[in-house]
Amino acid sequence: MTYLFDEPSNFAADAVAGLVASQEGLVQVHGGVVRSDATPAGQPALVIGGGSGHYPAFAGWVGRGMGHGAPCGNVFASPSASQVYSVARNAENGGGVILGFGNYAGDVLHFGLAAEKLRADGIDVRIVKVSDDIASNTPENHRDRRGIAGDLPVFKMVGAAIEAGADLDEAERIANAANDAARSFGVAFDGCTLPGAESALFHVKGGTMAVGLGIHGEPGVRDERLGTAQEVAALLVDGVLAEEPARTDNGYRGRAAVVVNGLGTVKYEELFVVYSHVARMLGDRGITPVRPEVGEFVTSLDMAGMSLTVVFLDDELEQHWLSPVDTPAYHRGALPARVVEGRESLWEPGVDPIPQASEASRESARKVSAVIDLFEAVCAREEAQLGRLDAIAGDGDHGQGMAFGSAGAAEAARAALADGAGARTVLVHAGEAWSEAAGGTSGALWGAALIAAGNVVSDRQAIDQGAVVEALQAGVDTIGRLGGAREGDKTMMDAALPFRRTLTGAFTGENAAAAIRAAAETAGEAAAATAHITARLGRSRVLGDKSKGTPDPGALSFSLLMKALGEHLA
Amino acid sequence: MTYLFDEPSNFAADAVAGLVASQEGLVQVHGGVVRSDATPAGQPALVIGGGSGHYPAFAGWVGRGMGHGAPCGNVFASPSASQVYSVARNAENGGGVILGFGNYAGDVLHFGLAAEKLRADGIDVRIVKVSDDIASNTPENHRDRRGIAGDLPVFKMVGAAIEAGADLDEAERIANAANDAARSFGVAFDGCTLPGAESALFHVKGGTMAVGLGIHGEPGVRDERLGTAQEVAALLVDGVLAEEPARTDNGYRGRAAVVVNGLGTVKYEELFVVYSHVARMLGDRGITPVRPEVGEFVTSLDMAGMSLTVVFLDDELEQHWLSPVDTPAYHRGALPARVVEGRESLWEPGVDPIPQASEASRESARKVSAVIDLFEAVCAREEAQLGRLDAIAGDGDHGQGMAFGSAGAAEAARAALADGAGARTVLVHAGEAWSEAAGGTSGALWGAALIAAGNVVSDRQAIDQGAVVEALQAGVDTIGRLGGAREGDKTMMDAALPFRRTLTGAFTGENAAAAIRAAAETAGEAAAATAHITARLGRSRVLGDKSKGTPDPGALSFSLLMKALGEHLA
Repeated sequence: MTYLFDEPSNFAADAVAGLVASQEGLVQVHGGVVRSDATPAGQPALVIGGGSGHYPAFAGWVGRGMGHGAPCGNVFASPSASQVYSVARNAENGGGVILGFGNYAGDVLHFGLAAEKLRADGIDVRIVKVSDDIASNTPENHRDRRGIAGDLPVFKMVGAAIEAGADLDEAERIANAANDAARSFGVAFDGCTLPGAESALFHVKGGTMAVGLGIHGEPGVRDERLGTAQEVAALLVDGVLAEEPARTDNGYRGRAAVVVNGLGTVKYEELFVVYSHVARMLGDRGITPVRPEVGEFVTSLDMAGMSLTVVFLDDELEQHWLSPVDTPAYHRGALPARVVEGRESLWEPGVDPIPQASEASRESARKVSAVIDLFEAVCAREEAQLGRLDAIAGDGDHGQGMAFGSAGAAEAARAALADGAGARTVLVHAGEAWSEAAGGTSGALWGAALIAAGNVVSDRQAIDQGAVVEALQAGVDTIGRLGGAREGDKTMMDAALPFRRTLTGAFTGENAAAAIRAAAETAGEAAAATAHITARLGRSRVLGDKSKGTPDPGALSFSLLMKALGEHLA
Repeated sequence: MTYLFDEPSNFAADAVAGLVASQEGLVQVHGGVVRSDATPAGQPALVIGGGSGHYPAFAGWVGRGMGHGAPCGNVFASPSASQVYSVARNAENGGGVILGFGNYAGDVLHFGLAAEKLRADGIDVRIVKVSDDIASNTPENHRDRRGIAGDLPVFKMVGAAIEAGADLDEAERIANAANDAARSFGVAFDGCTLPGAESALFHVKGGTMAVGLGIHGEPGVRDERLGTAQEVAALLVDGVLAEEPARTDNGYRGRAAVVVNGLGTVKYEELFVVYSHVARMLGDRGITPVRPEVGEFVTSLDMAGMSLTVVFLDDELEQHWLSPVDTPAYHRGALPARVVEGRESLWEPGVDPIPQASEASRESARKVSAVIDLFEAVCAREEAQLGRLDAIAGDGDHGQGMAFGSAGAAEAARAALADGAGARTVLVHAGEAWSEAAGGTSGALWGAALIAAGNVVSDRQAIDQGAVVEALQAGVDTIGRLGGAREGDKTMMDAALPFRRTLTGAFTGENAAAAIRAAAETAGEAAAATAHITARLGRSRVLGDKSKGTPDPGALSFSLLMKALGEHLA
């Protein structure tokens, strides 16, 4: 039960305000928190985040030796791309950005969209998805697993590497090495209650435990009788050690960082009872626990449950695990003194000036704006049809989302053009506006696609035919990467991927319009063919079977816009 | 609900083992934990403790800048005197001991008994009872209140003073100053469940909050409708600020240490939401929060509740609040480096040699041992009667407790005598054995009385008539101080205090036997008169009314033993 709140819808923001009020080392910015001292010039900025309700993850880990900033979403909900972007802009100071988050679809989407926008600003961005939960996918696909308490050691190690002087490439390498070496396994005994909700998100049957249940109630592996502390410890140790890597002379030699994490209502004494078994069982297998942590690190409000995380260490990771850190909720050792630079100013949304643009790029920008106006007209015309299709197996909002998104994008493009923007800036502003105006997954994906297209062109040069094709390819690639869908999932990608293949095959370097027309025709046929498949992912996932016989509205809208684009260019 | 345990009766010990396994800075000793590095020679040792189930209180606060050791009782139960003694013996290194604990009857008794024993060893001991909970007594009697989250700032400040070089007097002064400046007020929303128990210790009615409810479910002030976070913050701020002291130029000037403490199931985001209101409300009253702490510090397993603690600071307390500290669960800033001395050995129960004694003192010791043999005989004779009286309004074990306790004491006294002990050592060994053999409150009080009597005499000199009287007075005073009962509460003190008054008045310096006989007669009459009163405190408290018409068995046994002593000496 969550007892203390004012207006439930403001709970996450109210909590951030209270955290910042209690901590001299943090300042609040639009979207989250950053360190009150400026990131040293040229140091990579580690921006870590996710939904609220997991404190001390993530805002409690912002400070020297760990995060530079944390965007804070609503309870159990990813921060929006604009929140991530704002925090990253305030954290970045010339050394690039690592965006670190647990691997959940919403976070992948919104952090990914923010990354596109940051790249459009010329900032180097790397994405690190923590994926330590062995219950959520096979060992071969461990980078597709969910992130749980592995957030703590992974972000600790990256932050330590950065504090020790790592550049962006090196920090990214350490982050991936840490995540690849981290394995977690957990059990849950009961669910948590969101502020203001009448009942818990879920329950676990009394006397049983849900093995591998996720921190937001995602499905686990199986239910079992609730065991003794020793039985639970054995279950978790066996789970994580099933993926113990081979020992090598200069790699993993049987030393492991260990985290016993309570989710909220399993208390400290219980965690210590479990840890005493864990320590013995690891010892029995010849594994030395290094600086174990036993406590609450990645919580889920008042959820009853706990997990064991093991990071199989080499010398490099061990050094980063053991080095000092100083954050509100995580503190070890003593950092060397350094001259602290205060912040001269904070970045706020809407304050970026329009970059100077060449006349050639402005001429291209006018054409881009006209294309987005065309998209607005097509979406307005098709809104009703797309809505009807979506209502059959989804929530019926796809027509409206496309209409709102394209209208917002068209307006933003015209405004940027009027302010003297070049092609790149017009596309980036249009993309930001699309995702904000549309909301939802398809809005974020279209917005990211426009920003990615903008990143291919520039404010200095005209868009030539090659750049048009490259921008379309980049847009499709971004949708694929952020959305995570494959062909056959009955999503936009069932039209976009055939489109991309035809476009790439047909383009000779001089026939962009014709190649796009040919590709759009392929996309139209592919969209129609989605009527024969059952939804696996995307807006239709809830009612998979019901979707049979109806084309996917996202695939259809994609093909319609590409068809209009091809005709417009001809 | 407590989910993870093995054998419930071993839960507290298993948790301590796990804590120690996870922390390089701690070692386990009989009864609890101490720092793994030796206390610097001459530094006062801060020994803090209480029941388990409150982590990080108390074992999580053992480290530089805070505690030197923590005895760990069972869940919500005071550590035994022998646990406290063992931890203190391992922590003490020539600078004396401060025993710090929350003000609860069981802790007062067992820490007090340990203090008597430490003093018998020649160790200077000071007792600091934290009493910050405003819901539990009037402002005038604030030192009689319960201790709750005020444990954190009080022990932090004492530990800091010691780390900064305070001697025992100075550390005691700071401890009392900190406790006198600390005020807490809390609310609870639901109770916790002991390991292995079927149901919670108590419940709070849904939609309501129990204002001022204690951390073990002790009665609060009233029940109220569950308020918003803002309403709860206002209630708590108003409560603690009702006792805000006057501001002075070189004392309290409107600066306050602030602790928002969660009891287990009220989670971090909720606490931050409350804190943002607390910070604003304090600011509105011209109070500056200094280094606020928001989190879980003094928990009660998975109890749902929280409290606000304010310490009204002067410059001295502020300095000790802000200075660095490095413990498993509480860490701030960076302590200056120092040469760490490892421990050469650990003290274990039963390893103390019998101190050398003079022949004069050994002659007195033989007489002491004979008296304790007499007590054993009297208790054996009266066991059945005392048991019957106790069964009327108590749990019926007083006769057996006195018989077991006196038999154990007599055996220990004879053994010590055989090993060459003097009078002091015989009394101390007898007292320790009495409390161990008897168990329960009366056993601890009789044990403490014998140890206190031992502290009055020595292993060098004979016991003269003055020393006999002084030893009896010291025994009665100790029972009064540790038991906390006053005349009229229907306890042993209703016989012991009249006994002491008559003894003191009748003793001329040369008539100890006669004075004791007179005093014992007074005690006998007073014990009989307890039949007319209703129990308020002591073993009969559960069935107060039922005790009317029956004399208090503890008062009766005291008077019977004193009567036997007087006759024996004559």
